[in-house]
Amino acid sequence: MAVKHTKRTEDYSKWYNEIVQRADLAEHSDVRGCMVIKPYGFAIWEKMKEILDQKFKDTGRSNAYFPLFIPKSYLSKEADHVEGFAKECAVVTHYRLKNSDDGSGVVVDPNAKLEEELIVRPTSETIIWNSYRNWIQSYRDLPILINQWANVVRWEMRTRLFLRTAEFLWQEGHTAHATAQEAKDETSQMLEVYADFAEKYMAMPVVKGRKTESERFAGAEDTLCIESLMQDGKALQAGTSHFLGQNFAKAFDVKFADKQGGLDHVWATSWGVSTRLMGALIMCHSDDEGLVLPPRLAPIQVVAIPIYRSKDELRSISDKMNLLKDAFSSKGISFKFDDDDNRRPGWKFSEYETKGVPVRLAMGPRDLENGKIEVVRRDTKEKDLVDFEGIAGYVASLLDEIQKNLFDKALDFKTKSTVEVDDFKAFKKAINKGGFVSAHWDGTSETENRIKEYTQATIRCIPLEQKKESGSCILTGKPSQGRVLFAKAY
Amino acid sequence: MAVKHTKRTEDYSKWYNEIVQRADLAEHSDVRGCMVIKPYGFAIWEKMKEILDQKFKDTGRSNAYFPLFIPKSYLSKEADHVEGFAKECAVVTHYRLKNSDDGSGVVVDPNAKLEEELIVRPTSETIIWNSYRNWIQSYRDLPILINQWANVVRWEMRTRLFLRTAEFLWQEGHTAHATAQEAKDETSQMLEVYADFAEKYMAMPVVKGRKTESERFAGAEDTLCIESLMQDGKALQAGTSHFLGQNFAKAFDVKFADKQGGLDHVWATSWGVSTRLMGALIMCHSDDEGLVLPPRLAPIQVVAIPIYRSKDELRSISDKMNLLKDAFSSKGISFKFDDDDNRRPGWKFSEYETKGVPVRLAMGPRDLENGKIEVVRRDTKEKDLVDFEGIAGYVASLLDEIQKNLFDKALDFKTKSTVEVDDFKAFKKAINKGGFVSAHWDGTSETENRIKEYTQATIRCIPLEQKKESGSCILTGKPSQGRVLFAKAY
Repeated sequence: MAVKHTKRTEDYSKWYNEIVQRADLAEHSDVRGCMVIKPYGFAIWEKMKEILDQKFKDTGRSNAYFPLFIPKSYLSKEADHVEGFAKECAVVTHYRLKNSDDGSGVVVDPNAKLEEELIVRPTSETIIWNSYRNWIQSYRDLPILINQWANVVRWEMRTRLFLRTAEFLWQEGHTAHATAQEAKDETSQMLEVYADFAEKYMAMPVVKGRKTESERFAGAEDTLCIESLMQDGKALQAGTSHFLGQNFAKAFDVKFADKQGGLDHVWATSWGVSTRLMGALIMCHSDDEGLVLPPRLAPIQVVAIPIYRSKDELRSISDKMNLLKDAFSSKGISFKFDDDDNRRPGWKFSEYETKGVPVRLAMGPRDLENGKIEVVRRDTKEKDLVDFEGIAGYVASLLDEIQKNLFDKALDFKTKSTVEVDDFKAFKKAINKGGFVSAHWDGTSETENRIKEYTQATIRCIPLEQKKESGSCILTGKPSQGRVLFAKAY
Repeated sequence: MAVKHTKRTEDYSKWYNEIVQRADLAEHSDVRGCMVIKPYGFAIWEKMKEILDQKFKDTGRSNAYFPLFIPKSYLSKEADHVEGFAKECAVVTHYRLKNSDDGSGVVVDPNAKLEEELIVRPTSETIIWNSYRNWIQSYRDLPILINQWANVVRWEMRTRLFLRTAEFLWQEGHTAHATAQEAKDETSQMLEVYADFAEKYMAMPVVKGRKTESERFAGAEDTLCIESLMQDGKALQAGTSHFLGQNFAKAFDVKFADKQGGLDHVWATSWGVSTRLMGALIMCHSDDEGLVLPPRLAPIQVVAIPIYRSKDELRSISDKMNLLKDAFSSKGISFKFDDDDNRRPGWKFSEYETKGVPVRLAMGPRDLENGKIEVVRRDTKEKDLVDFEGIAGYVASLLDEIQKNLFDKALDFKTKSTVEVDDFKAFKKAINKGGFVSAHWDGTSETENRIKEYTQATIRCIPLEQKKESGSCILTGKPSQGRVLFAKAY
């Protein structure tokens, strides 16, 4: 019974949805826009969390927890922020239900109306800066370097698993500093943390850049970002780090006594990544057979499957596998021996391929006799018969190689999919083909909007690292100080 | 400037609030009933989480994530559950705000009313069992052993930091089984996990027991619990594990094909502990000077403070401390060397005492010369001058000893505070004195309620381990099959 799966070339979006479902990562819930993250999907997110959390702690950050609810009036305190976030959000208006008069269920108790509505946090700048006001009196209280792992809600009308959901999980860092420079340095440092994580762990190359004014976080003076490219040529914003200036300190009246005894408003940053990274990870590496996971984020790095007819054969293979288990464990490699008797080897091969397990081992009675084991890597599907002796070391190197290969492949794709163009005709052609298009722009939001209108492409970022080069805007011909990166985006 | 702190004997409740504030653990937010968990408090919670999470995984459980919102109608599907949980809760009625006509801020958009209100989860049985319906077809899909770390909201009118807040953090396990026995075994197993965690890590002795019908979880057929005793003689429920029978499977129509080909409803459990454990931890061990933490849950296990006049002296001491840092690190002991030049040693001594750091080291120039270091343990406040040579091993043993001492002390208190009584006069006297009161009860909710009315005491649990003994109910004189444990409780 061969089920036909959608190929990437046929319908990329359908392919993506199928992978998420087939690999048992997540599903839509009955609650509009909210997803259920299933155990296998959550295990990948947990690995991401664990690595990022350690990076935050290694650079001196601590975790804390702030309320889920934000009083409605807080959102209005920062003028740009309210425009960006006080729109599509979940509003709590009542605090009690009661039995309905007809006994059919429960209804909202009209007597339990809140004096001020509460908003389920879409992001926590306002509630956090309201707390920081009481925490900060002097320069001695600075810097404050806090991160929060939390759920947030933004009422999205069109949702896609991991990529855009009403509720999602994320981390949000919120720091407070005595000087603008220190806050800017923090913004840059956290961008580096994100870029390093994306490239070293997700095996996903990124472009580090700065958002244009119109794409900036609502309330920020500067937004840095990492942008990556998916296999369909669309860009995905994978993380942002914002320099908030003194905007929130002013909105929430947070001042500190500096060393000279003067009073000044505090400087702020915020930075975050979300379960959206799961979508990026899936789309960056997976193929028509299913999920492909970089070894450093795979919940199961190696799976072994016994091929046997008799219980005796299974027992002999199991004995060998138990040795292997210890060998992998001592190398910190996560290993699963799947001896489930209810499933056939073919079913298992397909299952672990779909789930993106980086290395699959298989052993039958003949292999046992010959001291061999079959090794299949998920990324290239190459199959080898390898000596059982020393197999743990062999697999450890192979995992490193797979990690590197996935990154190299994605980098190659990104390089090939990035083009420079110098006129609008070539621009339109390149944008329709997909990928990053590097072009000159006159620096105005007006031109940016017109280009978006004509082509659906947005400026993903002004890259931080690129050659200095002046030129003429592809649309208006006006002078430009440097190229920016356009793409259609998720 | 000596600030006078409230003593436990003066006002236990005030003492508790002061400790939470002085040790910088948490504070009330401006949002009614919601707390801010500050970095030091959160670091303790993270240690708890990490240990419990590992225990869950070691026993075969996986984490997943389900939606924050529950459609109102779901709560009505299980008759008892709705009575227990569909009352004081946060109700989302709208999904959009808009600018107010007078430009003064934002208002709820009346056009964005939800067709069905959403409830912020007070617990997740309903939303999870609604998902399980699609996950379970046959016995091959069972058991499902899932845990979720999440925030939940129950609209509480009178709140206390950690002990009772509108929003709190917790974990909730939700398992599905093919047989009643397997589900009952799961319920017992998770109770053991909680009891082990409470005693071995929190150093908090507990009584394992069963709730009476009136104290059971709404929707459960059986609720097991661990109960502990605080220093003021009041009991605190520290964790619960529920056998839910087929109640939720029936409410959400979750059936499975068994091995014989028949169809049956699935059997369920749920189990949870929350940030309430933080309250228990604080109240179980702390003293009039501040927080006392068991070493296994202390974010900083050892702090070292240099005593110096010159920079040269500080440098010599720092060199020694860096050696110590490595020695502690290799033993997995978390160590902080506080060389902050802005604070005097006396201030630091008091700070770390308040924060409950289990071991404090201090070293001055004379100690350095003599190859000694001062060691002070937080639990007994004993001070010793110890050879610097081998200090890491000395401190490692001391941490074990402190862990044990805290448990022994709490166990001794619990033992001394548990009395058996056989008549109502003695009962009232014992209850007013505080502690656990073991007494006979006739088994009816009516009697239980009358006792509560007269004395404010509730039946904390029917202990799982106790001698079989029949007797007469202290209130009604009717026959009783065994003693139950009464107390006033948090």
